[in-house]
Amino acid sequence: MSRPARSSRRRKSDDKKPIEFLQPLLNNVPFVELLNEDGVEKIHRASMRLLADFGVLIIDYPEALEVFRKNGATIVDGNKVRIDEDTLMHFVNKAPSQWTQLARNPAKDLPLGGRHTVYAPVYGPPFVADLDRGRRASTFADFQELTKLAYMAPEMHIGGGVLVEPNDLNLQTRHLDMLHCLSTQSDKSFMGSVVFPDNARDTVDIARIVVGEERMRDNPAVSSTVNASSPMRWDDRMLSAITVYAETKQAVMFTPFIIAGAMSPSTMAATIAQLNAETLFGICYAQMVNAGAPCLYGSFLANIDMKSGAPCFGTPENNMAMFAGGQMARKYQLPYRSGGNFTASRIPDAQAGYESASTMWATVQAGANFILHSAGWLEGGLIAGYEKFILDLEICAMIARYSKGIGLTDDDFAWDAYEEVPTGDHFLGSAHTMRHYTTAFHQHQVFSMDNYELWETKGSPTSYEMANKRWKQMLKDYEQPKMDPATREELDAFVAVRKEEILAGKPRTAWKR
Amino acid sequence: MSRPARSSRRRKSDDKKPIEFLQPLLNNVPFVELLNEDGVEKIHRASMRLLADFGVLIIDYPEALEVFRKNGATIVDGNKVRIDEDTLMHFVNKAPSQWTQLARNPAKDLPLGGRHTVYAPVYGPPFVADLDRGRRASTFADFQELTKLAYMAPEMHIGGGVLVEPNDLNLQTRHLDMLHCLSTQSDKSFMGSVVFPDNARDTVDIARIVVGEERMRDNPAVSSTVNASSPMRWDDRMLSAITVYAETKQAVMFTPFIIAGAMSPSTMAATIAQLNAETLFGICYAQMVNAGAPCLYGSFLANIDMKSGAPCFGTPENNMAMFAGGQMARKYQLPYRSGGNFTASRIPDAQAGYESASTMWATVQAGANFILHSAGWLEGGLIAGYEKFILDLEICAMIARYSKGIGLTDDDFAWDAYEEVPTGDHFLGSAHTMRHYTTAFHQHQVFSMDNYELWETKGSPTSYEMANKRWKQMLKDYEQPKMDPATREELDAFVAVRKEEILAGKPRTAWKR
Repeated sequence: MSRPARSSRRRKSDDKKPIEFLQPLLNNVPFVELLNEDGVEKIHRASMRLLADFGVLIIDYPEALEVFRKNGATIVDGNKVRIDEDTLMHFVNKAPSQWTQLARNPAKDLPLGGRHTVYAPVYGPPFVADLDRGRRASTFADFQELTKLAYMAPEMHIGGGVLVEPNDLNLQTRHLDMLHCLSTQSDKSFMGSVVFPDNARDTVDIARIVVGEERMRDNPAVSSTVNASSPMRWDDRMLSAITVYAETKQAVMFTPFIIAGAMSPSTMAATIAQLNAETLFGICYAQMVNAGAPCLYGSFLANIDMKSGAPCFGTPENNMAMFAGGQMARKYQLPYRSGGNFTASRIPDAQAGYESASTMWATVQAGANFILHSAGWLEGGLIAGYEKFILDLEICAMIARYSKGIGLTDDDFAWDAYEEVPTGDHFLGSAHTMRHYTTAFHQHQVFSMDNYELWETKGSPTSYEMANKRWKQMLKDYEQPKMDPATREELDAFVAVRKEEILAGKPRTAWKR
Repeated sequence: MSRPARSSRRRKSDDKKPIEFLQPLLNNVPFVELLNEDGVEKIHRASMRLLADFGVLIIDYPEALEVFRKNGATIVDGNKVRIDEDTLMHFVNKAPSQWTQLARNPAKDLPLGGRHTVYAPVYGPPFVADLDRGRRASTFADFQELTKLAYMAPEMHIGGGVLVEPNDLNLQTRHLDMLHCLSTQSDKSFMGSVVFPDNARDTVDIARIVVGEERMRDNPAVSSTVNASSPMRWDDRMLSAITVYAETKQAVMFTPFIIAGAMSPSTMAATIAQLNAETLFGICYAQMVNAGAPCLYGSFLANIDMKSGAPCFGTPENNMAMFAGGQMARKYQLPYRSGGNFTASRIPDAQAGYESASTMWATVQAGANFILHSAGWLEGGLIAGYEKFILDLEICAMIARYSKGIGLTDDDFAWDAYEEVPTGDHFLGSAHTMRHYTTAFHQHQVFSMDNYELWETKGSPTSYEMANKRWKQMLKDYEQPKMDPATREELDAFVAVRKEEILAGKPRTAWKR
């Protein structure tokens, strides 16, 4: 069967391609409720006991101890915070359940919370890999290419954060280079810098320049991810960034980083309770700093390989934690951040496919609102893979299709097709099929449905090789999105000033809360 | 972290390895209810309308027309059966909801129905492929090797049926060679031959010899898969086999073979309603032949690639149909057969991994009781892949683990670990971890958790290559299960007589209903 080309993504490369944008998923399918009500309550109570009886260590950030003390928590042993359920939940309940995450291009603003789901690319790898160049320490050139790919990919709702670590840039100022790149090479909502409070301030100021202070009055433009130093610890690098983002009401996702069996006990109930305790503790802190600051309930779990000590991804335990995390987030009426296309594999081989699809389906079925690491993740997050990025987009698109559910209108039941087609005949040429063929079924972008013989005539390419072609074509097709020249000038000037201040060791100027 | 070897599957090859057997899954996790109650009812009503107003063609099997006519259906246009809801459901309701599927080795008998799930290997490919020998037309030597692999694999509850087509054997007698192989090289429950009624009779007689007539009085020993010739047709090859199996109360799974957009309309609601109609029609026939015959509600759906006409696997549409199929099967209180580790890919590359994991998780979440094609499927079922077989076992084991759900006992909450370990410290050495480390987390068999450097020292193997090593080792470790010599003699004699009869064109002797 031959059809005219339909998708603009498939047009000849000499055509002008509009940059497509997949609308955020509106998840119409049921969430997987792995725990029953009693189970959710048991996890909650265990978390409350962990926080009240065992406590959380605050590392090198006395400001946070003071905030907790002032708001009714108990400080023991110098830097351990114990907090009771009433105090904790009083603050957690101040966090909003939904908001709009702003992008430079308002057409790419994103609903965050409820039944909406957005995809964000891989975050944080120190290495990058592709089929031609192998694995290597990542550079700013890689960062720029991945920024372009995330911009070109319709499935990526978020433009990126630390897409890869630009190891060739000055550590003190590289956040400015990354933010400049994300806000000029892409027009999608971007993620903020953490680690130092001034990095967070720079992020917010850059958002104010490119998104606009006026628009940011009611909604955040930046989403940033912070990790507990599990088990049961939050450190100065994260708490100081949280402080800045909470003060400016920018979105923060609070995510423990647990490798179960090491940073938590080796049983799932304890691990999930600990994840829950660490997350709520972070959110509580943000609300103490500024009530109403947008917070995402984050869940990230790997588990240790009990034979080798290596972290495992894409496991049944990962999925259990993801489902349970979604249930806890819904209990607290908080948007849920989880991820992603996880794998322990080092290349996009079959293992990577099995593991990634296993976690990615579970993430959406868990009701995640913000899916970090949706594209590009390899080797437990140590590598950003170009081909993996492309392959992951396929599963993102498939799941987006699934999230629409099954239509049950009279037309969906196709009675006219059964009237038209004699019993036992095929439906290819029926009027009903002709009416639906452009939207019927997921349309593959890189996965190949070719039979063996046809595939052989094409050189028997693996999906790894097919993805390699595709990212090169995407980079070839890339065109920078337009930016108002005055905005660009202001942005460039800001970055120049800040770099100068940082390199000269001068204090930061012109910070508006 | 280094631990003593625990799994007997990991022992040195000079040790005697017991053949492990994974107990059938007891699915403790919630099923995905994609349709609401109203949706289930709408699908049911649409199916009833298809059967009452449009009907099903009976191809070249007047015996079935007579059975339907006698039991209250209407025959129109010579060979079209129209049947109303009351008549259809009167018979469908006679089918049992649960039974025990017998194996030659009673320790490998299987519960079929309820919340139990069993895995069965790939069925029916005319080609076979492995990394060393490439793709080729399959032979009986391949069939024997795959029989041994399915016997060795703890995850395969069913020993197999047509694991691959033995193209080098006489078409008329190859079913006898396959059944002889399945019942001597393995001791697991096997699947029966369809296509000709005498093939089905041979299957049942061989089961009587190796499993025992006494044990088969109350439960079936054979499970066989039959397909509608969709759309809305059942043919003589299948109906004649159904007749024999129904008469002898052997289990039959009734599965339409629909590639949506061609053999059904291109909308999901119509496709699911048609699947449902075709399945129920087949089950109704079996019950008319012999009330109480064990029947599985089968669902198999691919969809057409609207650009190329190629069938697609592992798609969101596949999953939707799988979830909905499970809901319909539960409505009718019938065990549910679905599958499997589906992919359109021709080799176990990343695409194969993504697609297979996507369908396999969905199958279990859909509540499938019998998962056909759980291991080895490539290229839309045209190829049985040795390495794919091995890789699929990993995801089968992972899902088995998931199906146990999250334990919520006091010990699962690990309070003694939190008491023992100072806040902020890791849990690796805690008494709780030591108590749980042998059972904590899924233990990978072929997927590698090695970091990049370690993996490089091993030669940077892909999971395809790692799986290659594993099936060779499994074949090396294979030992034939014991069989009583008298049984073996009877079996050999039976096969010899039947071959002689068939090749001489003589009628079949000694058939007991």
